Amino acid sequence: MAKKVAVIMGSDSDFATMKASVTTLKTFGVECEVHVISAHRTPYEAESFAKSAKDNGFGVIIAAAGKAAHLAGVIAAYTTLPVIGVPIKTSMMGGLDSLLSMVQMPKGIPVATVAVDGSDNAALLAIQMLAIEDEELAGKMQDYKVKMAKDVNAKDIKIQEEVKAL
Amino acid sequence: MAKKVAVIMGSDSDFATMKASVTTLKTFGVECEVHVISAHRTPYEAESFAKSAKDNGFGVIIAAAGKAAHLAGVIAAYTTLPVIGVPIKTSMMGGLDSLLSMVQMPKGIPVATVAVDGSDNAALLAIQMLAIEDEELAGKMQDYKVKMAKDVNAKDIKIQEEVKAL
Amino acid sequence: MAKKVAVIMGSDSDFATMKASVTTLKTFGVECEVHVISAHRTPYEAESFAKSAKDNGFGVIIAAAGKAAHLAGVIAAYTTLPVIGVPIKTSMMGGLDSLLSMVQMPKGIPVATVAVDGSDNAALLAIQMLAIEDEELAGKMQDYKVKMAKDVNAKDIKIQEEVKAL
Amino acid sequence: MAKKVAVIMGSDSDFATMKASVTTLKTFGVECEVHVISAHRTPYEAESFAKSAKDNGFGVIIAAAGKAAHLAGVIAAYTTLPVIGVPIKTSMMGGLDSLLSMVQMPKGIPVATVAVDGSDNAALLAIQMLAIEDEELAGKMQDYKVKMAKDVNAKDIKIQEEVKAL
Amino acid sequence: MAKKVAVIMGSDSDFATMKASVTTLKTFGVECEVHVISAHRTPYEAESFAKSAKDNGFGVIIAAAGKAAHLAGVIAAYTTLPVIGVPIKTSMMGGLDSLLSMVQMPKGIPVATVAVDGSDNAALLAIQMLAIEDEELAGKMQDYKVKMAKDVNAKDIKIQEEVKAL
Amino acid sequence: MAKKVAVIMGSDSDFATMKASVTTLKTFGVECEVHVISAHRTPYEAESFAKSAKDNGFGVIIAAAGKAAHLAGVIAAYTTLPVIGVPIKTSMMGGLDSLLSMVQMPKGIPVATVAVDGSDNAALLAIQMLAIEDEELAGKMQDYKVKMAKDVNAKDIKIQEEVKAL
Amino acid sequence: MAKKVAVIMGSDSDFATMKASVTTLKTFGVECEVHVISAHRTPYEAESFAKSAKDNGFGVIIAAAGKAAHLAGVIAAYTTLPVIGVPIKTSMMGGLDSLLSMVQMPKGIPVATVAVDGSDNAALLAIQMLAIEDEELAGKMQDYKVKMAKDVNAKDIKIQEEVKAL
Amino acid sequence: MAKKVAVIMGSDSDFATMKASVTTLKTFGVECEVHVISAHRTPYEAESFAKSAKDNGFGVIIAAAGKAAHLAGVIAAYTTLPVIGVPIKTSMMGGLDSLLSMVQMPKGIPVATVAVDGSDNAALLAIQMLAIEDEELAGKMQDYKVKMAKDVNAKDIKIQEEVKAL
Repeated sequence: MAKKVAVIMGSDSDFATMKASVTTLKTFGVECEVHVISAHRTPYEAESFAKSAKDNGFGVIIAAAGKAAHLAGVIAAYTTLPVIGVPIKTSMMGGLDSLLSMVQMPKGIPVATVAVDGSDNAALLAIQMLAIEDEELAGKMQDYKVKMAKDVNAKDIKIQEEVKAL
Repeated sequence: MAKKVAVIMGSDSDFATMKASVTTLKTFGVECEVHVISAHRTPYEAESFAKSAKDNGFGVIIAAAGKAAHLAGVIAAYTTLPVIGVPIKTSMMGGLDSLLSMVQMPKGIPVATVAVDGSDNAALLAIQMLAIEDEELAGKMQDYKVKMAKDVNAKDIKIQEEVKAL
Repeated sequence: MAKKVAVIMGSDSDFATMKASVTTLKTFGVECEVHVISAHRTPYEAESFAKSAKDNGFGVIIAAAGKAAHLAGVIAAYTTLPVIGVPIKTSMMGGLDSLLSMVQMPKGIPVATVAVDGSDNAALLAIQMLAIEDEELAGKMQDYKVKMAKDVNAKDIKIQEEVKAL
Repeated sequence: MAKKVAVIMGSDSDFATMKASVTTLKTFGVECEVHVISAHRTPYEAESFAKSAKDNGFGVIIAAAGKAAHLAGVIAAYTTLPVIGVPIKTSMMGGLDSLLSMVQMPKGIPVATVAVDGSDNAALLAIQMLAIEDEELAGKMQDYKVKMAKDVNAKDIKIQEEVKAL
Repeated sequence: MAKKVAVIMGSDSDFATMKASVTTLKTFGVECEVHVISAHRTPYEAESFAKSAKDNGFGVIIAAAGKAAHLAGVIAAYTTLPVIGVPIKTSMMGGLDSLLSMVQMPKGIPVATVAVDGSDNAALLAIQMLAIEDEELAGKMQDYKVKMAKDVNAKDIKIQEEVKAL
Repeated sequence: MAKKVAVIMGSDSDFATMKASVTTLKTFGVECEVHVISAHRTPYEAESFAKSAKDNGFGVIIAAAGKAAHLAGVIAAYTTLPVIGVPIKTSMMGGLDSLLSMVQMPKGIPVATVAVDGSDNAALLAIQMLAIEDEELAGKMQDYKVKMAKDVNAKDIKIQEEVKAL
Repeated sequence: MAKKVAVIMGSDSDFATMKASVTTLKTFGVECEVHVISAHRTPYEAESFAKSAKDNGFGVIIAAAGKAAHLAGVIAAYTTLPVIGVPIKTSMMGGLDSLLSMVQMPKGIPVATVAVDGSDNAALLAIQMLAIEDEELAGKMQDYKVKMAKDVNAKDIKIQEEVKAL
Repeated sequence: MAKKVAVIMGSDSDFATMKASVTTLKTFGVECEVHVISAHRTPYEAESFAKSAKDNGFGVIIAAAGKAAHLAGVIAAYTTLPVIGVPIKTSMMGGLDSLLSMVQMPKGIPVATVAVDGSDNAALLAIQMLAIEDEELAGKMQDYKVKMAKDVNAKDIKIQEEVKAL
């Protein structure tokens, strides 16, 4: 049976950013579950979720957090599933603090970090992971790339018209 | 048949760092291939390698590069396989330049970025991806985590003895 | 025949910034072509454009991109023409990420980087390059500098009047 | 009975830095216990230690870690005791990554962060906390400050002699 | 008798941020006093306040300041009480300048630094310090943590409903 | 005769910031002259102004500039008068770029740099320099400091009333 | 007649880095002249050199400097020739200070900035500029790129042998 | 009578850097006094020194400190004399922390900041301040600049010989 993707975030305010992960996963027909879990305020829920994630049918976990941004690392400590980290933008350093907290993991416990607020890409990366052994999903990803290229080509034509009008 | 992992790097000087990826993959019994490919100096090889990687039996690509560090992004442009980026440490900003160049990918083309010089973790992350549908590999990863914990426990005991001797 | 300048950008949203390059080139009577080409979403177009740019009558390529900002480097990989990079401002680090991704190119493939959002200066730099062997264009550039100085002098006088009124 | 101070660290390699905490605590007659506990590699030990620390007679916990540096935050999640964080210097950003990971804690779970590699000061801060209700310890801290001033005064005299000899 | 907490700030404009410290302390029933004292503009008041703080019944001092942000360190120079520093956000570097000025204290004079604008956490940290020898306060802190967890759980449920509605 | 202070700036847009220098100097009765001079667009005016500044009765030069911010350094190259640099805030890095360009001067040519947008302080610093040999001006500066302290004390009282009303 | 390239630097200590520019230019048969000129210590020489550079047969000027790194901008102020800036690495910020001082030029006076210590690339960029109207030089540049690719391919083969031997 | 310059530093380890200030002042015949005074460890000495500096015949105070680097600001709080700050290089951020702590002073209390480890320039700046009303000293400064230019010219000739020998 197809594996699910978990999308968890440290604060409900992160959902504005992480909604894009959910809709991207749905577009590709990948089932997902969403949770607000805080590494610091609900550490027991974090542990419990991470430990049982594999048995509960998850294949990948996406974890979003800002500032100290420990969530992805804490989840990764309790599971062997790949964990994707989304550093949330902060007003202090634009998310550089979140990024460094997520990506600089010690040897043994990797977090697959994407760009600050990289919610779409986190979902696409999860899909790429699931697609390693799922040709249908790999095909959808290939179609997605073709569509992206067409969109850029269409914009190229539109800009050239704008330039002519200058 | 089990998928292979590619370990590519932008310069042969990166191999000192990336050797750890190779040995980690071997320890887990995952087949890998290593290449020096430069996004800027051998762009045709980069394109050719990335386009055929899936058909050539690869499941994941690890790409290491420093400074402008475009390699992982360029590879990701030509494949639907998940691409793991290892930012190589630089003398200018300790690898912060490499990290930002790798991780800040635009929507549509994610790179799963690990820590600066995070060669071991890149391999472990690749293994976690392959283990999503490979219970044997997942079991080895679980064993690896148990062994890590035991190593830390042993060090804990050793430090306590050092403290007594102070 | 006079060489053209290409102004390419990774996203159509960059055109708000890059319009200044186009109008500056037009003011100096330098022909230019504008394209939206993404190093990651349309890598084949990037390759194709760069490889044929010289034969298509271009003398200089201006490439603007933000965040990972690989466009200028990827273009430079496929051409011997000078490539000018314009790092686009980002909300995360004010464009420092774009700047570092563009300027820290490896030995062999330079990118002539200007200031973050330095769209005007990219065009002026392209004109200076074309003016090396074009005395008429060099003369226009000299006139431009004289006019700039006069503008500053006029502002100097105006500010002194404001100061008197304090 | 006097409360103990715990000195925990994410890696045994941090002990070179954290030894100064231990010797400072001993000098002030404050009992301490030292442990190597990793937030990521031994998460169960971290939880277990933090949850029982208060009942085990600890008054303050000092936690040192580098890079992603989650240890202090993870400990703070499981205890109401004050947690002091020592960011360990890193080769990538001189410890700025460790510092930001430690100090930027979300509302509700503070970590009292000291300077990068601020091992001595972590111990002094712990002593100041214990001294709030312990006049003898407060007196020792006052003596320590007087001695520090005398040491600076002695160095002042010595430097003036060096200057005369120039 | 229960110790008081002082909340001092370098500028009255910091009060918008520091009000949260005051209300948090009040919620926990901890008495506090608030002062505007500038390390640079009223150095005599800073000295006088810090020197007499212990005798005046204070147990902890919270000091907030921005930019050069010397206030916490100057206060710490004149007292043996623990000093908590709150770096105030700045428009230049988002408060990174304030943070570095506060946290990088020399050996001998620690400042317990919290996050940029971490006004709530400064109060919670002060309460944790006072709670070391005050079981009632420790109990309130434990209740606070339980309530925080419940709030996160409630948000978790709410987000899941939002996701269903997507 | 009393020396004048020059206030020069690289762009007329800097005057919004630098007006404070002018009004501060006037308040202290120090004569000043204001000019828009660009190190890059009017280099001859920069040279000419700097070379003759001492003979024209100036004692100190305040130079404000943003981004590459060469103005203060270029002026300092042509005069032996003390030059005070005011780094202007930028949208890219909050003025950190301007600050580093101004302050990191090579051996032999100092620029007395103040805070980003530190227009008031530049004037006060100039006044302090002139006051070294001018007791009347030194007295005014002392009065200014007394007034500042009183203002802070007044704010202290006002904040305490706000706190009571909480 | 073929245009010359000037290689100037702010300090003779920069020559260790800039020698690579000179040897690269010689390899391509491009005549060059080398000068130590300081924007701050020899401003008259800087002005004089820049003003007469075009008439003296130069087509491009390469200017290297560290820290405040004003040299390239000052030269650009006095000439219409394209100026390439090489930020020299510094011990304070790895050359980030030099980079920002060079690249963040105001509108009207561009500096074509390359990587920190990017001495080779500065020469290659100068050659690309001269090659716009010089087919022979463009051919040499093309040959150079082919050779670079071959060198990378050779390293690829060598690394694969090293991997086999692991 | 000629005013003296004070050179104070927060730690005797700073003297290796600050010796250059002393020797530069001596070369210009300016009398100086050197002290180790810590803003945090000897705050009473700092206050006492600063308050009496003007009456004791000082015209300028140079203050060097690293990391939190409060010394210059604390001294400036107690005197109307101009205070020059020398940020000392640190292993964490190359002195950027020291620089920001020194330069970002609040309105009312300026510190004239020079480059990280800018010991020579601090002395030269002090001399320029004293030279405002001392023509003999101004003449020596002019001679110093002439000599610097000659030194650069000599190095220019030497480098050209090295280039010929390549």
